Amino acid sequence: MAGRILLLVLSMNVVFFIANAVPETCPADLGEKCGENGEWEGEFFPGIPKIKYEGPSSKNPLAYKWYNAEEVILGKKMKDWLRFSVAFWHTFRGTGADPFGAPTKYWPWEDGTNSIAMAKRRMRANFEFLNKLGVDRWCFHDRDIAPYGKTLQETNSNLDEVVALAKELQGDKIRPLWGTAQLFMHPRYMHGAATSSELGVYAYAAAQVKKAMEVTHYLGGENYVFWGGREGYQTLLNTDMERELDHLARFLGAAVAYKKKIGFNGTLLIEPKPQEPTKHQYDWDAATTLNFLRKYGLLGEFKLNIECNHATLSGHSCHHDLETARINGLLGNIDANTGDPQVGWDTDQFMTDIGEATMVMLSVIKNGGLAPGGFNFDAKLRRESTDVEDLFIAHIGGMDTLARGLRNAAKLIEDGSLAELVRKRYSSFDTELGGQIEAGKADFEMLEKKAMEWGEPKVASAKQELAEMIFQSSL
Amino acid sequence: MAGRILLLVLSMNVVFFIANAVPETCPADLGEKCGENGEWEGEFFPGIPKIKYEGPSSKNPLAYKWYNAEEVILGKKMKDWLRFSVAFWHTFRGTGADPFGAPTKYWPWEDGTNSIAMAKRRMRANFEFLNKLGVDRWCFHDRDIAPYGKTLQETNSNLDEVVALAKELQGDKIRPLWGTAQLFMHPRYMHGAATSSELGVYAYAAAQVKKAMEVTHYLGGENYVFWGGREGYQTLLNTDMERELDHLARFLGAAVAYKKKIGFNGTLLIEPKPQEPTKHQYDWDAATTLNFLRKYGLLGEFKLNIECNHATLSGHSCHHDLETARINGLLGNIDANTGDPQVGWDTDQFMTDIGEATMVMLSVIKNGGLAPGGFNFDAKLRRESTDVEDLFIAHIGGMDTLARGLRNAAKLIEDGSLAELVRKRYSSFDTELGGQIEAGKADFEMLEKKAMEWGEPKVASAKQELAEMIFQSSL
Amino acid sequence: MAGRILLLVLSMNVVFFIANAVPETCPADLGEKCGENGEWEGEFFPGIPKIKYEGPSSKNPLAYKWYNAEEVILGKKMKDWLRFSVAFWHTFRGTGADPFGAPTKYWPWEDGTNSIAMAKRRMRANFEFLNKLGVDRWCFHDRDIAPYGKTLQETNSNLDEVVALAKELQGDKIRPLWGTAQLFMHPRYMHGAATSSELGVYAYAAAQVKKAMEVTHYLGGENYVFWGGREGYQTLLNTDMERELDHLARFLGAAVAYKKKIGFNGTLLIEPKPQEPTKHQYDWDAATTLNFLRKYGLLGEFKLNIECNHATLSGHSCHHDLETARINGLLGNIDANTGDPQVGWDTDQFMTDIGEATMVMLSVIKNGGLAPGGFNFDAKLRRESTDVEDLFIAHIGGMDTLARGLRNAAKLIEDGSLAELVRKRYSSFDTELGGQIEAGKADFEMLEKKAMEWGEPKVASAKQELAEMIFQSSL
Amino acid sequence: MAGRILLLVLSMNVVFFIANAVPETCPADLGEKCGENGEWEGEFFPGIPKIKYEGPSSKNPLAYKWYNAEEVILGKKMKDWLRFSVAFWHTFRGTGADPFGAPTKYWPWEDGTNSIAMAKRRMRANFEFLNKLGVDRWCFHDRDIAPYGKTLQETNSNLDEVVALAKELQGDKIRPLWGTAQLFMHPRYMHGAATSSELGVYAYAAAQVKKAMEVTHYLGGENYVFWGGREGYQTLLNTDMERELDHLARFLGAAVAYKKKIGFNGTLLIEPKPQEPTKHQYDWDAATTLNFLRKYGLLGEFKLNIECNHATLSGHSCHHDLETARINGLLGNIDANTGDPQVGWDTDQFMTDIGEATMVMLSVIKNGGLAPGGFNFDAKLRRESTDVEDLFIAHIGGMDTLARGLRNAAKLIEDGSLAELVRKRYSSFDTELGGQIEAGKADFEMLEKKAMEWGEPKVASAKQELAEMIFQSSL
Repeated sequence: MAGRILLLVLSMNVVFFIANAVPETCPADLGEKCGENGEWEGEFFPGIPKIKYEGPSSKNPLAYKWYNAEEVILGKKMKDWLRFSVAFWHTFRGTGADPFGAPTKYWPWEDGTNSIAMAKRRMRANFEFLNKLGVDRWCFHDRDIAPYGKTLQETNSNLDEVVALAKELQGDKIRPLWGTAQLFMHPRYMHGAATSSELGVYAYAAAQVKKAMEVTHYLGGENYVFWGGREGYQTLLNTDMERELDHLARFLGAAVAYKKKIGFNGTLLIEPKPQEPTKHQYDWDAATTLNFLRKYGLLGEFKLNIECNHATLSGHSCHHDLETARINGLLGNIDANTGDPQVGWDTDQFMTDIGEATMVMLSVIKNGGLAPGGFNFDAKLRRESTDVEDLFIAHIGGMDTLARGLRNAAKLIEDGSLAELVRKRYSSFDTELGGQIEAGKADFEMLEKKAMEWGEPKVASAKQELAEMIFQSSL
Repeated sequence: MAGRILLLVLSMNVVFFIANAVPETCPADLGEKCGENGEWEGEFFPGIPKIKYEGPSSKNPLAYKWYNAEEVILGKKMKDWLRFSVAFWHTFRGTGADPFGAPTKYWPWEDGTNSIAMAKRRMRANFEFLNKLGVDRWCFHDRDIAPYGKTLQETNSNLDEVVALAKELQGDKIRPLWGTAQLFMHPRYMHGAATSSELGVYAYAAAQVKKAMEVTHYLGGENYVFWGGREGYQTLLNTDMERELDHLARFLGAAVAYKKKIGFNGTLLIEPKPQEPTKHQYDWDAATTLNFLRKYGLLGEFKLNIECNHATLSGHSCHHDLETARINGLLGNIDANTGDPQVGWDTDQFMTDIGEATMVMLSVIKNGGLAPGGFNFDAKLRRESTDVEDLFIAHIGGMDTLARGLRNAAKLIEDGSLAELVRKRYSSFDTELGGQIEAGKADFEMLEKKAMEWGEPKVASAKQELAEMIFQSSL
Repeated sequence: MAGRILLLVLSMNVVFFIANAVPETCPADLGEKCGENGEWEGEFFPGIPKIKYEGPSSKNPLAYKWYNAEEVILGKKMKDWLRFSVAFWHTFRGTGADPFGAPTKYWPWEDGTNSIAMAKRRMRANFEFLNKLGVDRWCFHDRDIAPYGKTLQETNSNLDEVVALAKELQGDKIRPLWGTAQLFMHPRYMHGAATSSELGVYAYAAAQVKKAMEVTHYLGGENYVFWGGREGYQTLLNTDMERELDHLARFLGAAVAYKKKIGFNGTLLIEPKPQEPTKHQYDWDAATTLNFLRKYGLLGEFKLNIECNHATLSGHSCHHDLETARINGLLGNIDANTGDPQVGWDTDQFMTDIGEATMVMLSVIKNGGLAPGGFNFDAKLRRESTDVEDLFIAHIGGMDTLARGLRNAAKLIEDGSLAELVRKRYSSFDTELGGQIEAGKADFEMLEKKAMEWGEPKVASAKQELAEMIFQSSL
Repeated sequence: MAGRILLLVLSMNVVFFIANAVPETCPADLGEKCGENGEWEGEFFPGIPKIKYEGPSSKNPLAYKWYNAEEVILGKKMKDWLRFSVAFWHTFRGTGADPFGAPTKYWPWEDGTNSIAMAKRRMRANFEFLNKLGVDRWCFHDRDIAPYGKTLQETNSNLDEVVALAKELQGDKIRPLWGTAQLFMHPRYMHGAATSSELGVYAYAAAQVKKAMEVTHYLGGENYVFWGGREGYQTLLNTDMERELDHLARFLGAAVAYKKKIGFNGTLLIEPKPQEPTKHQYDWDAATTLNFLRKYGLLGEFKLNIECNHATLSGHSCHHDLETARINGLLGNIDANTGDPQVGWDTDQFMTDIGEATMVMLSVIKNGGLAPGGFNFDAKLRRESTDVEDLFIAHIGGMDTLARGLRNAAKLIEDGSLAELVRKRYSSFDTELGGQIEAGKADFEMLEKKAMEWGEPKVASAKQELAEMIFQSSL
């Protein structure tokens, strides 16, 4: 072969391909897996069965204890409440690299290249994984699934080739929950994409999003996500924040127009994150993103993709940001992960906290579910978890945690006492004057008159400890 | 005298008066300061001269080294750029109490009561302080300046009595920068004021704000502030966040209507804070508050009062929140203080960091100044600073720091190289295509065509270290 | 009259008494509770029964669902594992005040004074509370239980009077888990107690600790606690940290000597906290405190009292600080509370997180229990919880959470698979060379020889996700 | 061909070489720089002159404004107070990669390989950089300066080859401030090095440290550093913390023995860091590390290398951790960088804050300087700074900031009023009783007697605002 192969393995578990490197055949050390034509044969996960529901008493790490896809909870199947999705980038491009460490994961099907052949083999592994897990949705960045070419044209053509295979492997059942363009890894995006100080980069990003939207549409994706990885700043000293925000709005406006033009009916989602990689990201949290959408007249065109670990990094509970999105009518999708409460960066761990999962599901149920959104596992194995089976254990753990949350939330709702406690707290507004206030018809003079008439108002206990006791009883 | 006097001294350095306690005369232990009629005589700050500008080489703690009120910087007098204000509550009601400690400050003019006589004496001290400092503005909460009565009516009448004296003492020169209603200290507000779960409290708060606006108007106040001290929640488990936010919007709408009705032309300001006392406050930061104002159609009616310590508690630099307010056209006032970067609560310290002050002043200059807003010293002596002169030293330090920031910012602007560095970074948008993008006329197809034509875009260094070097050279 | 001035300083929910105010009789507005001699009659908590265990399916807020005192878990009664204690200061002196708010709690038995009569009435309420809850231990600060006098002598005599009653009410069954001296509330301690810059304060603090140790001993207390509330600094600019730390060591040394002199055999405990009220506290966390004890030769004389909310404020999980104390042989007591992970100050909430409680109990079980220490509820009602029954609900919730944690931890230990996973990870050290390394007999040359001989070492997966799955299965 | 696969793992800006790839000659695209034998010819930094001192009024970014190496401050030359060192890894192996982004820096002398030839070329660039900057010290990790071989033996031999060149290039003047072994990047160290759960890794790490110490000794290094990059844990659920800490102590003990054996007289330094990459690192901060050293009897053998950004991540000011090290006699070296106060990870920025630099220099002066330690710039260009000149600008900025800090600190010391303020605060201990207390001769009974005799102690103001004003006047 010809080649000076440069494989730059980057953290965030995404492999970034610079030069041209295409070992067409199955690597020698893969042994019996290599068929005659050099293609991978047989299973990628040979020891792993289709994961089944065995109930809470099971000790089998490769079984669901709480997630029972077809079981009906509050009138809907668990799989329809939860609409799980596997994140291709973490699960299949995650290398275990971190800012202080090299990759730790050497999956048997990887040959050390970022060739198209490797991309296809990896895609097959992805679908075997989905099928064994019993999950019908997946999410991807354009650059995770197919290698860079020398030009944008060549890169697009690489993408088309791999996407064609993905379409075939999807069959009737599997669809992307969403697709997205990776606009943060390549050095050209170091100052941002839509908010780059360089016009050429703005144009390049537009071309990339255009293609990613087309591909998502082609694969039957239900949503399309914008995560503004580098749409932000490192220091205000060298930044024109106002101009950058204007550019971002123009970019998103053009995306809306193009979506309509190609007849893509999926939801456009913005994913807030407060910081990392930049010191400040423009989509800091749900409220900040809502302000941006309102300011630039984009409100009807986007919903939010709330990631729990991003919410906590911005100083909120995950529940808070979900509720902020929900009461503004914009809760569209959840990136189901969790952070470490003592750690100041995105750890993207699989959720394991039952209490947190229960609060998340309370929001989801109040939202009437998430469809056409769902729960994407934007979560990765710990760097030190290096067995193939760890990929399954991690996903099973995450799915069971949310399934347990759903069961608990349903218990709380059926019991009704928590909702009643809340309803009762505000019952003084369920009165005639309350109605006037809520209709904007109570002016200060009228209210002052009442206040003077009534004297010191009665104020009831907030019963927080009781609310917590009721909540805990559901766990 | 009659009475069972309960003086509840609370933290945040505000004295909260429950029962009726009026030692009409000057307390015995105040000695020679007591005139014949029991009134305080002579100076409150006898050893302290009128504070003068002595220049940077002065070692006199009771002189300005950088603040020279009449000196012209960038075409405007320092006093007109800076428009300083003393916060009555910190400086005259601050007791040094904290969550773990009793008051530490026993100013000579205090008699241990919260009587009207005491309130008046304190007001006189305030004006002597303003005059000696050479500051023409002050800020107040209604409940700091006059004692509670047994009823709202009686409380209002107490307020009127003290306000009449303040009006007289103000003379021609001094005015409130702003007034506000204290809606967080009294137990009735424990669930919030406009967002309380109790309708009676909502009405009471309306009556209190009505009166506070009237009083601010009467005193010639230039602004009126809403700080939502308890407009937030402790846990979502017992909270109807959506309903609370609706109530808050109705309340602010009624305030706007009343302002217009009474012909008060001052600016209404909202002061964001992320948390403390509540776990989450609805006016979390500038962006969150902007979203709220936009959602409820209140955008044209309010500006923001940015407090530096609040900004840093919300995870932003002070400079960031100032710029966020500014580029949305809503930078109205600054609460000039600072926090400790390693401490997770509001420390309300006087600003001493020259670099931070320089960034603050860069925003202010870009904003064309703050008028009719200004810089309110929402800052307090440390609990352990217990000499009367410490009150002066702290204010002089804060004023000199901002004056130094102004001088540095002016140097940077006159030098021009930092602005030029920023302008140059974005110059690729100062082109025809840049213009089309910024006008919303560049669609994805057109941009893709350009991107393919151009190939890999050039991306210049962001020159952050150079920007920091230029910035530091101004200090 | 010369005055019945009560200056109630409220913060940290402790009432601080300055002047002399002794309504000997039952206040008129307490109505029928007042007996002939003015003493409180009947129950303090009339509607509240003795709290009983009803099991997990009970919906009765006034019943235990998980805490069954006499039930044996891992060979020991629940009550002996848990050794619960009520914190007098939070439960009986907590007022609901916070830095921005006045007291919210007006318990029926309080008459608004800090008299000795009131102190005694309150002490009776405490013992009724303990009895109804079925808790045999209590903790106190000297200044919570008895009022200040005009001199230290008078204050000591007030304390003696109330302590005599407490001794009587304790009967055979109830004892202090620990006593302590409150050395942070009074303004004299504003610069610290043992680390004050004032020698007179150092001496005063010594006298106060001397008395508090005597009183704790007299009441049969099992431990004595040092929480260095203000032993720290606000800024290094005005602080001689080295000298302050030397003074602290001398002070603790004198405490050890006095303990021995009076024959008090209880454990001396130091309670770490990173900050608040001071910017830096010298007993920052377990490791910092251990360093201090080792440096000054005090290691054998003290154990640690780990508070969960303090641990998280210092950047650690509670579990981490417990384990740090445990593996150094110094885990003596736990202040059982929890903080809000998004909040930067001490919220002192009752623990409600089952996962956290399970980790806490894993440490406790590994420690062989805590005796003579225990679990003190250094936790308070939320400010907005104002019903008498909330006091019970909060404690029941906290006790049930830890009881649930104990049950879960026992399940994990009995199951054994988590411990086995850990044991296996380190099994390469259970070899001859491993033994040499651990005995300090393997030098670099010998190890290099092995490393070169062996080539690239094998490194197994850390199985974190599996460990988390096993852990969650116990909840 | 079997492959010229270069797996460049980029994070923490260190390039990690897996396979064998040695373009012996100068890469074609380097053009005229390639001499006949393929070696780089002429200057690496052709446009950059030797950096000179031009004084504060200079606007030349490539000149010192405050650092004047030979100028005497407080009796010592600036270069002797400051003892600057360039960190090879950041400056010559920094790629600009971050967890979300690929490398951005393509220095002209880099050929995309990690060959020995490239390592040597880079080393020459390093020495040209040192010479132009006028800095006499450099720091390195073993793995930054020479490529991995297939075996440890081969790796060591690569290292020897590059080290021989470095020795030659050092000449008489330049020496390593310190060397260290990189024990965190390679996947074998994913569970730690000395605290790995795998004995084979422990042995490998020992062999690596042995060699790194030899090499440091050979080059005339003045110190040797241990940064426990992965000596910590991700979760306690799978960790035996006690056993890991024991192993760490044994490892360090063996390092001490080997140091003595080879006659290396440099100081061994431990560099604390609280977390990142692990959730908890065992050398959390200065105090934690001190506790460890005391516990295991290692106190006399190590000093501390305090990194400012690590100090702030652990919740302390940099000044605090410096003072903690200093008053324990262990301040050995400073990693001169700074973090972003709103960011929760290590940003390793060059210091630009004059106030912080002044506090740092106050500690250093009190310490009598740092020799044989110094200031290592463990700081990197921002990812977006991609011009070669940015490397110079960043170092000049960092050096000038500390030089300015030194000048300010000297001013403060010469002025004396801040020191006098502190001395006076504690003067009550400069008495006979104070002496007895400090000698451990004042028992509680004696102190109680005094306290009762004296009555309420006087407590003076802490004068924090005055201290801050004096401090600021030096800036």
